[in-house]
Amino acid sequence: MKIDLNSDMGEGFGPYRLCDDEAMMKLVSSANIACGFHGGDPEIMGRMVRLAKLNGVGIGAHPGLPDRLGFGRREIAFSPDELRQQMLYQLGALMAIAKAEGVTVSHISFHAAMGNMVNRDPVLADLMMDAIATVDAGLVVFVTHGSEIQLAARRARLKTLALFLADRAYDAGGRLVARGLAGAVIKDEAAVRARVRQFLLEGTVETIDGAVIAMPARSILVHSDTPGALELAGIVRGEIEATGAALAPVAELAD
Amino acid sequence: MKIDLNSDMGEGFGPYRLCDDEAMMKLVSSANIACGFHGGDPEIMGRMVRLAKLNGVGIGAHPGLPDRLGFGRREIAFSPDELRQQMLYQLGALMAIAKAEGVTVSHISFHAAMGNMVNRDPVLADLMMDAIATVDAGLVVFVTHGSEIQLAARRARLKTLALFLADRAYDAGGRLVARGLAGAVIKDEAAVRARVRQFLLEGTVETIDGAVIAMPARSILVHSDTPGALELAGIVRGEIEATGAALAPVAELAD
Amino acid sequence: MKIDLNSDMGEGFGPYRLCDDEAMMKLVSSANIACGFHGGDPEIMGRMVRLAKLNGVGIGAHPGLPDRLGFGRREIAFSPDELRQQMLYQLGALMAIAKAEGVTVSHISFHAAMGNMVNRDPVLADLMMDAIATVDAGLVVFVTHGSEIQLAARRARLKTLALFLADRAYDAGGRLVARGLAGAVIKDEAAVRARVRQFLLEGTVETIDGAVIAMPARSILVHSDTPGALELAGIVRGEIEATGAALAPVAELAD
Amino acid sequence: MKIDLNSDMGEGFGPYRLCDDEAMMKLVSSANIACGFHGGDPEIMGRMVRLAKLNGVGIGAHPGLPDRLGFGRREIAFSPDELRQQMLYQLGALMAIAKAEGVTVSHISFHAAMGNMVNRDPVLADLMMDAIATVDAGLVVFVTHGSEIQLAARRARLKTLALFLADRAYDAGGRLVARGLAGAVIKDEAAVRARVRQFLLEGTVETIDGAVIAMPARSILVHSDTPGALELAGIVRGEIEATGAALAPVAELAD
Repeated sequence: MKIDLNSDMGEGFGPYRLCDDEAMMKLVSSANIACGFHGGDPEIMGRMVRLAKLNGVGIGAHPGLPDRLGFGRREIAFSPDELRQQMLYQLGALMAIAKAEGVTVSHISFHAAMGNMVNRDPVLADLMMDAIATVDAGLVVFVTHGSEIQLAARRARLKTLALFLADRAYDAGGRLVARGLAGAVIKDEAAVRARVRQFLLEGTVETIDGAVIAMPARSILVHSDTPGALELAGIVRGEIEATGAALAPVAELAD
Repeated sequence: MKIDLNSDMGEGFGPYRLCDDEAMMKLVSSANIACGFHGGDPEIMGRMVRLAKLNGVGIGAHPGLPDRLGFGRREIAFSPDELRQQMLYQLGALMAIAKAEGVTVSHISFHAAMGNMVNRDPVLADLMMDAIATVDAGLVVFVTHGSEIQLAARRARLKTLALFLADRAYDAGGRLVARGLAGAVIKDEAAVRARVRQFLLEGTVETIDGAVIAMPARSILVHSDTPGALELAGIVRGEIEATGAALAPVAELAD
Repeated sequence: MKIDLNSDMGEGFGPYRLCDDEAMMKLVSSANIACGFHGGDPEIMGRMVRLAKLNGVGIGAHPGLPDRLGFGRREIAFSPDELRQQMLYQLGALMAIAKAEGVTVSHISFHAAMGNMVNRDPVLADLMMDAIATVDAGLVVFVTHGSEIQLAARRARLKTLALFLADRAYDAGGRLVARGLAGAVIKDEAAVRARVRQFLLEGTVETIDGAVIAMPARSILVHSDTPGALELAGIVRGEIEATGAALAPVAELAD
Repeated sequence: MKIDLNSDMGEGFGPYRLCDDEAMMKLVSSANIACGFHGGDPEIMGRMVRLAKLNGVGIGAHPGLPDRLGFGRREIAFSPDELRQQMLYQLGALMAIAKAEGVTVSHISFHAAMGNMVNRDPVLADLMMDAIATVDAGLVVFVTHGSEIQLAARRARLKTLALFLADRAYDAGGRLVARGLAGAVIKDEAAVRARVRQFLLEGTVETIDGAVIAMPARSILVHSDTPGALELAGIVRGEIEATGAALAPVAELAD
């Protein structure tokens, strides 16, 4: 089985860091690089692009709301066109920084509240996906399987890559259990290992209610902004190798 | 004679405006659009791009330092690579917003302190011009004739377009007299008219010391952030038409 | 009758201005000075304080949400304690700037979304008013008559001053008609004059439905961020003088 | 001997942290709290004030330049009045947040570039100290012994407290060796211990050239934004206790 392993990266700002990006870049096969709104700045973006190039890691844009104080986690009532321009702005910024290093942006993955807002609104999702397709029809969109973003991306003839979050609980509908709820975040290392293994070998996940459902994902997302993020990424990477799965580029995995 | 008439535009932010951009866009043939650092935001940039498209106006990036409070007018000790990434970030942001509207960015014009810093440092100028050429070798760089930016642009095989500022005094070396000095800004309407006419008909300008020097420019820059900016632009536009000169696209004028 | 005439002021930022604050400061008797979050910056705040001192104008804090791009008009899901600290931060900043000029802050008037959020939540309103009372028990709170802020201010033993908006329609309950609705903003000069006169002479206002209700306000608020703001302020000031009413300090009017 | 042990704290922002402030607050006797310009935000400031109150730690304002991206380390050409208003703004903001918690700000300590700019310019130093004295004549100013800030503070009749940096080299004139130079930062734990002991017992320090000079300080500053900061603070605290010195409030130590 071929799989992608990705993480949100370069989410620091000025003197601040959320993650040891240098170490994380050695573990993942693709990186979602913050684009200066919820996190990141031009210097950090440039550094991430160079690190990704150096490590043969795929480069993705990770646009968020212009809300550094809230790290893009709070919804703010922007109009659809404002959100569209904010997304284009961030995507284009990373594309130019990447191009100047001789590499290209392969994918886009929405951050937090921006993603939630788009996923709730099919009209907005179409607006966003059409804009992405116009800028670069070859961009792959990272999605939750079955989400509005995935549906809209397909309408815009963009390829998508569905994500599996190894340390988060799912409900019977294949949706993430909200962070605030009990059991939403799986912290036990053995449990995470088992989930990754099951996902890789059987393509399924056990829901929070104990049922087993299909998990039609081709990419594993590990968070970078939590304590133990590097360890978790190492565990997931280890399981990928242990099961004989192979890391592959986003372009090869997307459909 | 064919000439370009340009202005810095979209330099507002959120609720703020510095210029009646809608009216100005009807007078110029190319627009240098602020890219969200010293002025501008994604929504304004989108609006400027649409206005430019509607009016057949050429679209340029107008990158500045990340200093909204100081409007990009104060030099800040960024490293050459930081400046380069800041420029790329802003240029790319506008390119994506323009591309989503079906138009392209034709040129780049540095704002205030960023321009001053690049113009003083040939190594930095090369770094910046090489980055621009890598992103889009067809971009035209707006310059002061004979400046470091022009020299570096040529080394990077980028075309340039030299600017004439109708309401600013020049010294014997063809350099702008610093704003703070007496006589640096020409406010008399008749004087501005005469200068534009002389420039268009004879290709010369009278220096602050009364000498007449060649002004090898193919574009007139009118400021948009000063009282009376629209009137000045109207005067210059009127003189262009009165002298029989014709407005032409940047790509046609650059060399 | 004694009355206060106030306006929101110093809502510019860096190079930007929303109002001719110098001219407005000559018309009002008290000024609500933006405190650097939705608008304003330390330099502008210092200038406003000096202008107010020069013109014998009362100084108030005008705190808003930390959202310059949205001018503090969009609600953002801050926690009650975050809102409380944001308010205290802005209030204290203005108090120190005023104290250094030898004057004191007499009142506080919430801006836009921050005010709306506080007015909807009695618990939050108590939290905010208790904080204000702890910082300076002599501060007067500008309110809409009967609002949650007024009720909470009284519970905190703070004095309040109720506002009348001369150019805005009221409903039968004495509440402002939402800006988006037809007839919400009264633009006809004669109508505004008549409303001010009726308010001053009879203490009543005609609602949007044609009824006449009591308007128990002791202060008239004129907006400063709309075209024609200065003219409107001049009209209101003229009516105050024409009816024989006298401008008086906030401390004298509050109860 | 009585001594103060202080650190810069609350220099995070939104989701970012530079230091384990909770742990550091248990080691110091006074805290210089970032005020939202180079670092910090209202929520963090409120948390720092509560932590300081809980731990019986003295509260100081730590104002910096409005340059979050550069963490207030880069000089920016603000006018003297701009710097003065920026300082007042930050000081007042913290004073109100502290007052709402029932505690008071005891001192002020300038951050990085703001401190460097003030220390180089006696006229600016007088302007700043006069402003501080007008806001609260009881505030203690943290200084380098013999600096312009100390001289100006005394002219303004403000008390000062001179700092000793245990992990930084001094030259023969008692000035800090610039960070970039070899030997400027002392990383060896035993060396730091020995320096603290010598300072506490003899009131002297060995310069980078091997001379022994008087170090007339009554407060030790430990950095919080470097790896190992907590360990360094623990070492210094341990030496203070081992030598029989006693931590004392800023107000008691200042002169």
